[in-house]
Amino acid sequence: MNLTEGLRVIDITNNYAGPGAAALLAHYGAEVIHVEKPVLGDDGRHYPPIINGESMCFVRTNQGKKSIVLDMKDPRGKKIILDMIKESDILIESNRPGVMKRLGLDYESVKGYNPQLIYCSVSAFGQTGPYSRRPGYDVIAQAYSGIMYKTGTPEGGPTKIGIVLGDSFGTLNAFAQIMSALYYRERTGEGQFIDVSLARGLMSISANFDFEQTGVMQTRVGNHDRGLCPYGVFLGHNDESIIIGAVNTATWVNLCRAMGREELAYDPDFVTNDKRVANRERVNSIIQDWVLTYEHMSDAEAVLMEKGVPCSLIYNDRMLLEDEHAKACGWITEMPLAEPKNSQAHYHIVAGGFGLSKCQPVYKKAPLMGENNHEILGRFGFSPEEIDHMEEEWAEKAGIKP
Amino acid sequence: MNLTEGLRVIDITNNYAGPGAAALLAHYGAEVIHVEKPVLGDDGRHYPPIINGESMCFVRTNQGKKSIVLDMKDPRGKKIILDMIKESDILIESNRPGVMKRLGLDYESVKGYNPQLIYCSVSAFGQTGPYSRRPGYDVIAQAYSGIMYKTGTPEGGPTKIGIVLGDSFGTLNAFAQIMSALYYRERTGEGQFIDVSLARGLMSISANFDFEQTGVMQTRVGNHDRGLCPYGVFLGHNDESIIIGAVNTATWVNLCRAMGREELAYDPDFVTNDKRVANRERVNSIIQDWVLTYEHMSDAEAVLMEKGVPCSLIYNDRMLLEDEHAKACGWITEMPLAEPKNSQAHYHIVAGGFGLSKCQPVYKKAPLMGENNHEILGRFGFSPEEIDHMEEEWAEKAGIKP
Repeated sequence: MNLTEGLRVIDITNNYAGPGAAALLAHYGAEVIHVEKPVLGDDGRHYPPIINGESMCFVRTNQGKKSIVLDMKDPRGKKIILDMIKESDILIESNRPGVMKRLGLDYESVKGYNPQLIYCSVSAFGQTGPYSRRPGYDVIAQAYSGIMYKTGTPEGGPTKIGIVLGDSFGTLNAFAQIMSALYYRERTGEGQFIDVSLARGLMSISANFDFEQTGVMQTRVGNHDRGLCPYGVFLGHNDESIIIGAVNTATWVNLCRAMGREELAYDPDFVTNDKRVANRERVNSIIQDWVLTYEHMSDAEAVLMEKGVPCSLIYNDRMLLEDEHAKACGWITEMPLAEPKNSQAHYHIVAGGFGLSKCQPVYKKAPLMGENNHEILGRFGFSPEEIDHMEEEWAEKAGIKP
Repeated sequence: MNLTEGLRVIDITNNYAGPGAAALLAHYGAEVIHVEKPVLGDDGRHYPPIINGESMCFVRTNQGKKSIVLDMKDPRGKKIILDMIKESDILIESNRPGVMKRLGLDYESVKGYNPQLIYCSVSAFGQTGPYSRRPGYDVIAQAYSGIMYKTGTPEGGPTKIGIVLGDSFGTLNAFAQIMSALYYRERTGEGQFIDVSLARGLMSISANFDFEQTGVMQTRVGNHDRGLCPYGVFLGHNDESIIIGAVNTATWVNLCRAMGREELAYDPDFVTNDKRVANRERVNSIIQDWVLTYEHMSDAEAVLMEKGVPCSLIYNDRMLLEDEHAKACGWITEMPLAEPKNSQAHYHIVAGGFGLSKCQPVYKKAPLMGENNHEILGRFGFSPEEIDHMEEEWAEKAGIKP
């Protein structure tokens, strides 16, 4: 049996964090029904890059799901959601706080239909408190959490993290809590509500209040470490770069040997980590000069590895796709696409971040919009004609011809 | 019943990622026994800041645990671990891959003692593959994942994330997988092995291979967005700064009003997001100049909020500790310390990233080293005298007098 096999999930999410959490449940075997708004569908369907009408961004967070198009403001649409709730295990939604309540579909309103339901709301600042209605841009979660303030150089100012970290952490956070609630339900028979906040999640890994004790608040230190030296980024040619960390005596001596500078190993200015931290600029400048004698960082890496100096190339996506370790471990897999024109495309994705020995994710196509309308709405007593009619009616109401 | 109440956890971890995952289990009610090496204990006990002998870093990832000191190379020590395994639900370890096997304590060697055991190994590159024995520095996981390559400005080179992101993501990743394995065990009666890699975890949220379709690989865009404008960081005075995002017509018009520059709202150079992206430097420079007319970013924020422009201050730790939303939502709590001299300290922590309505974390003191030796080793048939004797023997063997 796979991890989430046999579970039914209603996925009323949009954009990135919510859909991503529901997709993880789908990879492990759950039936996940993604409920999309008429005509435009999930906003993620319109995010670049779009290949033959298929957004790669959408595909990455919706693989293995079914899709229905539904107007939740229409009494028939609302009744379908309530009927689905009666036979589902999990509902995930990521509307602006207050929206589900206005529709009569918030947890308090629906839990009577299914006390075992796990109802997970994903938002920027959570369902309560003075900021709860604020918009949920990823950068806003990043800014609030303190991570931007701590990233970059003191002179350069706060730095945006180059991936949608608030959303991505939110995805794992929501998944972890849903799995927790499933475990709790197995033990107690009870469902529950889960309030996932992207800002709170990032803050939980970023903030600390050590300054209350030390009097010194943490600021930015750039590409090297506060208390370890050498430990950080060294830039090569042509946008290549490398991490070198040699913080104890053995690895420092090894580094000096790798650089052909054995005389530095026991130089009193550099002999301990504390001395090197005190003379950080000289240490880093010696290493930086040495690094630049190599045309390719892979050659510098080979020398360092051979001498036993902790190091790593700084990877870009192309290097990852070609990496021997990722290949040997099966960390990258092919992704099937739904649009017929893309059926021959060789598209790769990271095969998840997990390593459960008895539960393996399976990656299937992301659905075309409304692909499963007839199958799913048919379950709840609508005839094919009624379904076609509702689709047309809702599309017209949305103001755009389908 | 709390989430992990009644569970027993053996925590043979060190540093940050592994201890953090075990701490989450402790907060929700599990009995977590942290096994530390003689004399020095968990390396985390020596990380700054250290207040009256108590490392704040250690405390944050070990609250609510018990601590025993044990030499796993000693046959008595190994037997205690095996006896603990027989009555435990979860074992977490974060030794360099290969170490537990040499001790005869790897999953394959011990699962016969308890087939329901969930055994979670945390490492940099996972238990198999060509890089598995590489050292596990946080920056190495960051470098491998691709996140450093994508963060910062094109001219500035890759940028280190200012928090231990590889470890922190690894903590949540390990917790999510352990909760998954617990759920699986409830359904099947079976335990399993979990292989957590910090590098793989971060890679799963950072890497994408869109360039296979588009021909263009993702690089760094600095503090603003590729396809949205304005959307990013604006610097104020005195290290204050603010995020402003106004990507649709309504919010752009609101922003122009907030700036007292209504004539820009329908300027053909700026009227759509695409136009603003094309004229990004002019747009951002107008906003930057306006921002700098405020001495404090909270005043700029108030004006933007009033006009309905999505924005956020960029928070540092002090601002978070004083934030009204964090306060109203209970996102920050006080942390008790174990060292008697610290009993009066008012130390705060983020009260986790979770929002389960029926399971609340409880934060207790982190243990002093070996605090629970007598209690725990006594369970396995050792007399107080034998325990004292082993402690002394192991300390002597470690080459340092206790």
